[in-house]
Amino acid sequence: MDESIVGTGRLEAFSDGVFAIAVTLLVLNIKVPLLSETANGAKLLAALRGQWPTYLAYVTSFLTILIMWVNHHTIFRLVRRSDNTLFLLNGLLLLCITFVPFPTSLLAEYIGHQGEHIAAAVYTGTLTVLAIVFNLLWYYAVSRRQLLRPDINLALMKRFTQVYALGPALYLLAFVLAFVHVGASIAVCVVLGVTFALPITPGAILQRGARE
Amino acid sequence: MDESIVGTGRLEAFSDGVFAIAVTLLVLNIKVPLLSETANGAKLLAALRGQWPTYLAYVTSFLTILIMWVNHHTIFRLVRRSDNTLFLLNGLLLLCITFVPFPTSLLAEYIGHQGEHIAAAVYTGTLTVLAIVFNLLWYYAVSRRQLLRPDINLALMKRFTQVYALGPALYLLAFVLAFVHVGASIAVCVVLGVTFALPITPGAILQRGARE
Amino acid sequence: MDESIVGTGRLEAFSDGVFAIAVTLLVLNIKVPLLSETANGAKLLAALRGQWPTYLAYVTSFLTILIMWVNHHTIFRLVRRSDNTLFLLNGLLLLCITFVPFPTSLLAEYIGHQGEHIAAAVYTGTLTVLAIVFNLLWYYAVSRRQLLRPDINLALMKRFTQVYALGPALYLLAFVLAFVHVGASIAVCVVLGVTFALPITPGAILQRGARE
Amino acid sequence: MDESIVGTGRLEAFSDGVFAIAVTLLVLNIKVPLLSETANGAKLLAALRGQWPTYLAYVTSFLTILIMWVNHHTIFRLVRRSDNTLFLLNGLLLLCITFVPFPTSLLAEYIGHQGEHIAAAVYTGTLTVLAIVFNLLWYYAVSRRQLLRPDINLALMKRFTQVYALGPALYLLAFVLAFVHVGASIAVCVVLGVTFALPITPGAILQRGARE
Repeated sequence: MDESIVGTGRLEAFSDGVFAIAVTLLVLNIKVPLLSETANGAKLLAALRGQWPTYLAYVTSFLTILIMWVNHHTIFRLVRRSDNTLFLLNGLLLLCITFVPFPTSLLAEYIGHQGEHIAAAVYTGTLTVLAIVFNLLWYYAVSRRQLLRPDINLALMKRFTQVYALGPALYLLAFVLAFVHVGASIAVCVVLGVTFALPITPGAILQRGARE
Repeated sequence: MDESIVGTGRLEAFSDGVFAIAVTLLVLNIKVPLLSETANGAKLLAALRGQWPTYLAYVTSFLTILIMWVNHHTIFRLVRRSDNTLFLLNGLLLLCITFVPFPTSLLAEYIGHQGEHIAAAVYTGTLTVLAIVFNLLWYYAVSRRQLLRPDINLALMKRFTQVYALGPALYLLAFVLAFVHVGASIAVCVVLGVTFALPITPGAILQRGARE
Repeated sequence: MDESIVGTGRLEAFSDGVFAIAVTLLVLNIKVPLLSETANGAKLLAALRGQWPTYLAYVTSFLTILIMWVNHHTIFRLVRRSDNTLFLLNGLLLLCITFVPFPTSLLAEYIGHQGEHIAAAVYTGTLTVLAIVFNLLWYYAVSRRQLLRPDINLALMKRFTQVYALGPALYLLAFVLAFVHVGASIAVCVVLGVTFALPITPGAILQRGARE
Repeated sequence: MDESIVGTGRLEAFSDGVFAIAVTLLVLNIKVPLLSETANGAKLLAALRGQWPTYLAYVTSFLTILIMWVNHHTIFRLVRRSDNTLFLLNGLLLLCITFVPFPTSLLAEYIGHQGEHIAAAVYTGTLTVLAIVFNLLWYYAVSRRQLLRPDINLALMKRFTQVYALGPALYLLAFVLAFVHVGASIAVCVVLGVTFALPITPGAILQRGARE
């Protein structure tokens, strides 16, 4: 037995913690309009409305991290054991996840202003890298049979591989769109978030019923 | 067996993390009076006293998130398995929970100033949406018998459904009051928080004694 | 069987999360000296040294929350089940814990300036209330035999009750000292933190060896 | 049986929380360039590029905390029980971990400016203390046979002791280098982070296969 292979319990707990914190820190990007700049209720309302890019960025990033968590969950329901490489790839994924609040904040600040193309490119670029790292983690995990649970439905796992592979391609499309039309670029990210949220069926990859 | 149905272990752990972080981030809204603006002890004390809306908003939001966590706990003690819809509704609930620090901060900033009605409306509006999403999650969970534990006390569960349904109605009342009298509006939120804290009896819905 | 009594698993997990976040947020109070105000290395060093109250407040609060977590752990190793009152007292304790970063920040800002007595009074006052709430939680838990594990060493538990009861009295002393001598007041808090850290022996209260 | 010895379950969970939060808070050090100072896309891009020390500090600290978590994990897979001293040493380690975001932020602010040597010295000094505390924790744990699992591979454990002992020495080298060449100093930290990431083989110290 390869001694460098270990269980995944604390790895998952630590990752869950990082996902939960990253998703909750996003709200710190939404700033309260300064009292000194909003003389009355109407002005406050206008200021709050004017912040719509912040809310949009908030929801998009929330959705993206949540979906990434779901899919992380999917991987680790199939994986029974971890080795050094899987650990490092997971660390790389968490590095990307914890970084997300920064481009989110950048995007929120610059939408509708000069520099919004750069901000959207940094945002979609980050999500592209995130999707690539996720795919590396997935490919590595599913290509090491000794790390996986024995009761895997291989056909279904292949379908997942194909679906996940669309991620980097489509986020790259959003990245290219960022230089042309920021709204369209973010729309792609939102659609991707919602789409990837739908087929949450790790249970289906296991041939017998899943018990957790 | 429907393969898209999975266990709830990591879903609960992730949700617990989000609740715990959201509730702890609230304190960041309480600002330390600037040294440059408080020449002596008496002025510092006055500045700290003048911040009472911040403390009030802090306690109200703490109470609301804590109670929401208790009731989230109640749902998932009855639910044995999760499916896609339950997962998405839970994600929507967490989106609302992580958002709470923003309206809390807004309310703290504007109480006693022009614009306090708008701030209170955003605050109570958020809590109303939160209560609606919670009810959607509850209705969905209790109407899918295959997701529930087999030993449910149906009569008691119905009573819970009735009690929970009061939430959106009463928060809507607080929302309407926000445009009339901010203090009364927040008072309703505090009373709701305390009231919903009382009947924490998920154990009672299970016919046999609960073991966790 | 009283149906309002439930297990403590998720209660502990949620509390642990709150303690861990509160203790980690403390570092946000330590500000980096502004580049514009520190022309060279010597000035930066002087600015960093001048921030010693911030480091002191950081370590004191870290110690206090850590010790509070240890003792919270002690209570819940003895408690087997939770009821509504225990839950509410725990919520009150968490409210105090999440509040600690604010008086810590206040103390760090005002030590050595006018207003330091007020800041130290708010700080030690918060710790006094925290100690009182902790004792309420402890008294309630140990006086409800049906909530406790059956294998409690009653004599030892009584000794704990006596030791814990010193907490509010000594923090109250620190509170009074805050108006006279800030340094002495904080010294009492540090000594209390270290002292309460020592007798971490919940295992000893259980008559048979503890297995977790 | 020594009654002051207890299990490590909640100790690990609490530590995991602190590690996860500290690693995620690092992103708050990366500031969004102010809209008012970046007139167009080119200037925003230049501002983002000019922030490279922030990204470097972010990645270095992320790596360091992650590796520290891995090695913390290694210790607690070998340790079966905790006592007062182990608990206090663990608390000291967590104090250092939660402090890391501050020197990270300091380093990011001062690289390339007057005062960068002081900032790098504070940064590498913190990591040196962290490495020393980690070694104290390790030495204490492995020298108390009653705290360890019975199936330890002693030869391998000795090799770990030798590898870990390099940490403080090499971070001390980075600390000395900070006064001479900041880039070289940080390079040592990055190399150390990556190197310590590689031999993640706690399983190997256990003579039979590890099951978690």
